[in-house]
Amino acid sequence: MSIVSRLNALLDATTAPLSVYAHCDLPCGVYDPAQARIEAQSVKATMEKYNASSDPDFKVRATIIKEERCELVKHHLWVLWTDYFKVEHLKQFPNLHDLFWMATKSAGDAKKTNDVVVADRLLSEIDAIAEIFWATKK
Amino acid sequence: MSIVSRLNALLDATTAPLSVYAHCDLPCGVYDPAQARIEAQSVKATMEKYNASSDPDFKVRATIIKEERCELVKHHLWVLWTDYFKVEHLKQFPNLHDLFWMATKSAGDAKKTNDVVVADRLLSEIDAIAEIFWATKK
Amino acid sequence: MSIVSRLNALLDATTAPLSVYAHCDLPCGVYDPAQARIEAQSVKATMEKYNASSDPDFKVRATIIKEERCELVKHHLWVLWTDYFKVEHLKQFPNLHDLFWMATKSAGDAKKTNDVVVADRLLSEIDAIAEIFWATKK
Amino acid sequence: MSIVSRLNALLDATTAPLSVYAHCDLPCGVYDPAQARIEAQSVKATMEKYNASSDPDFKVRATIIKEERCELVKHHLWVLWTDYFKVEHLKQFPNLHDLFWMATKSAGDAKKTNDVVVADRLLSEIDAIAEIFWATKK
Amino acid sequence: MSIVSRLNALLDATTAPLSVYAHCDLPCGVYDPAQARIEAQSVKATMEKYNASSDPDFKVRATIIKEERCELVKHHLWVLWTDYFKVEHLKQFPNLHDLFWMATKSAGDAKKTNDVVVADRLLSEIDAIAEIFWATKK
Amino acid sequence: MSIVSRLNALLDATTAPLSVYAHCDLPCGVYDPAQARIEAQSVKATMEKYNASSDPDFKVRATIIKEERCELVKHHLWVLWTDYFKVEHLKQFPNLHDLFWMATKSAGDAKKTNDVVVADRLLSEIDAIAEIFWATKK
Repeated sequence: MSIVSRLNALLDATTAPLSVYAHCDLPCGVYDPAQARIEAQSVKATMEKYNASSDPDFKVRATIIKEERCELVKHHLWVLWTDYFKVEHLKQFPNLHDLFWMATKSAGDAKKTNDVVVADRLLSEIDAIAEIFWATKK
Repeated sequence: MSIVSRLNALLDATTAPLSVYAHCDLPCGVYDPAQARIEAQSVKATMEKYNASSDPDFKVRATIIKEERCELVKHHLWVLWTDYFKVEHLKQFPNLHDLFWMATKSAGDAKKTNDVVVADRLLSEIDAIAEIFWATKK
Repeated sequence: MSIVSRLNALLDATTAPLSVYAHCDLPCGVYDPAQARIEAQSVKATMEKYNASSDPDFKVRATIIKEERCELVKHHLWVLWTDYFKVEHLKQFPNLHDLFWMATKSAGDAKKTNDVVVADRLLSEIDAIAEIFWATKK
Repeated sequence: MSIVSRLNALLDATTAPLSVYAHCDLPCGVYDPAQARIEAQSVKATMEKYNASSDPDFKVRATIIKEERCELVKHHLWVLWTDYFKVEHLKQFPNLHDLFWMATKSAGDAKKTNDVVVADRLLSEIDAIAEIFWATKK
Repeated sequence: MSIVSRLNALLDATTAPLSVYAHCDLPCGVYDPAQARIEAQSVKATMEKYNASSDPDFKVRATIIKEERCELVKHHLWVLWTDYFKVEHLKQFPNLHDLFWMATKSAGDAKKTNDVVVADRLLSEIDAIAEIFWATKK
Repeated sequence: MSIVSRLNALLDATTAPLSVYAHCDLPCGVYDPAQARIEAQSVKATMEKYNASSDPDFKVRATIIKEERCELVKHHLWVLWTDYFKVEHLKQFPNLHDLFWMATKSAGDAKKTNDVVVADRLLSEIDAIAEIFWATKK
């Protein structure tokens, strides 16, 4: 996409209300990888706060919250994988299954550690999924 | 912000992975009005699919799903109102309380109807909240 | 209301089954601030038990449970604010928004501490809301 | 209890903040049958609104909501039965098990009908449980 | 049951797909004590992993997860007690109420300890319930 | 496995308490495809009851419940796919991803119909997964 068309697309996106997408299994046709990414950002921020703290109660709370947020990442990714993607997408992107499998495994791994490297890996896996997602929407 | 810096910011946002924000009440500091908007988009799409269908079972499913999605809109907005916004924001945006109150009431109204006018009102109320939100992040 | 009519009202309330109110967003017209207060009582009791214990596992459990109970307080208050209260109530009680905002923020604060002062503040904020609620029911 | 002591108790209850109780399985020691009763009131009100309506979508929503509220009644009663009541209570109130079994079955029955007779039966079963509960708190 | 008929039954069970049962309160007529047992197995395994670990974060996670799994055990048992069992079953198995009461109390106790004796007691109580359950299905 | 060892294994399984497996993402190492199958059985039974009924309220309830049970099937399958299965299993069973993808899609399809053919397809897909699962446990 040229710079000009990227600029046009971006300006359209800013004059219009933010254009975002989700799911509902009706299906309503609304999906957006942003749902998984938002929770994954939260997972990473929680790890950082955990690492910066020396308060044991705070660390317990960070662990509780990280557990929940990782689960939400997994849920949003699973929904996208099963509900949005179709056989024709798989043909075009044959690594689709592996991408989702590894990303949801990373979300599980992020429960077990406060190493932000794991959160960063999760975020980049979600970004790879998002790239495919948006490619299929064109 | 000048047009040039807006363009720069937008281009940064596209070369970087999508930059989105959420919450976790740790607090992790990650919030994003997109969470409410995604569900509200789903509410609107569900209404449209309801209106276009003559299958009673499908209409029941649409009603079940709309009920859930409206509740999620309310939840995401409530979290943003209570957890993200601070006293200094309220001073700067004195209509903040009313905006959230009306938007969450619209999400409740959207449970009771399939009139997309209500979903559109909800979406524009969320956009008004998002505008304030992003203004406070600068 | 005179003492006599208060007594009559109270005796009516005891000869009748306990008269309590809730919500369901139908709306069914049943609401009761007691739902938030019960969970807030639980938050306070959990803090007290945490403070009296020296067992680290028990303290972790207390933290997990307090996290959930605070969330329930917030939920019940949010529902009351959005679903029960109407524009005419706001005119009569112009501090309504601030009361709910501060009370739900206190419920969030109670996640972050085991200082019962915070739980007591939360309880008194809920009582202030309950007073307004019951005034509107007359 | 004499009328005088009933009045004294009632006046105490009104000068003090509303005294209510819940659970958390810590155990925090806070329980209250009001939680089940509030939801059962909502079940009854939902049935009444269902019966008064001729709007099929409203009836679907009433059915969805009643399903949820009945489940909440069951949950609150189960918690009370398992977590609050002890062997010594059972000795004093040997019909305790049957009372809870029948009440939770009534909550299940209330899912299957809009006959308010079932909701009234459920409410009176909860009142019988509440009477025993408060007797054990003396 | 003779060894031969036990073998026949077992071979039937293996040539057919695994025959399992659940609930849905429609009622759909599908129930299975395995749902409670699976979660109870998880409770026991979590205790064992907790006891074998010296990592404080892992122990926090084990505590969070055990809390959830114990709650699921309680839920599955409560559903079975209220929804599946009927008055005629109670006549045939008069200790039914006590069995469920003690088993759900054990599930609550298992939240408060990492002593596998409690998990083993819970498992054997679930097995006693399962035996009655399968006797009523004949 | 020889007939004799199968018999021995089966007899061991019956003298021991029922041996079942679940998950908890600790990971506790307890998993069992029975969790998905139980809910799928419920989906099928709900369809059958829907088809046999002419009561519109009952049909609404069946639709609500089927929606929930299908979601539970999906959840249990997703957990198994992401948490239990490892890279070495995928090598041995290269159709693993497709099996889970199709099965979770079938669970989504079962929300949209009362045709038991879809429930039967879902059940046989779960059985195929279970066969692989148990093969990996040997």
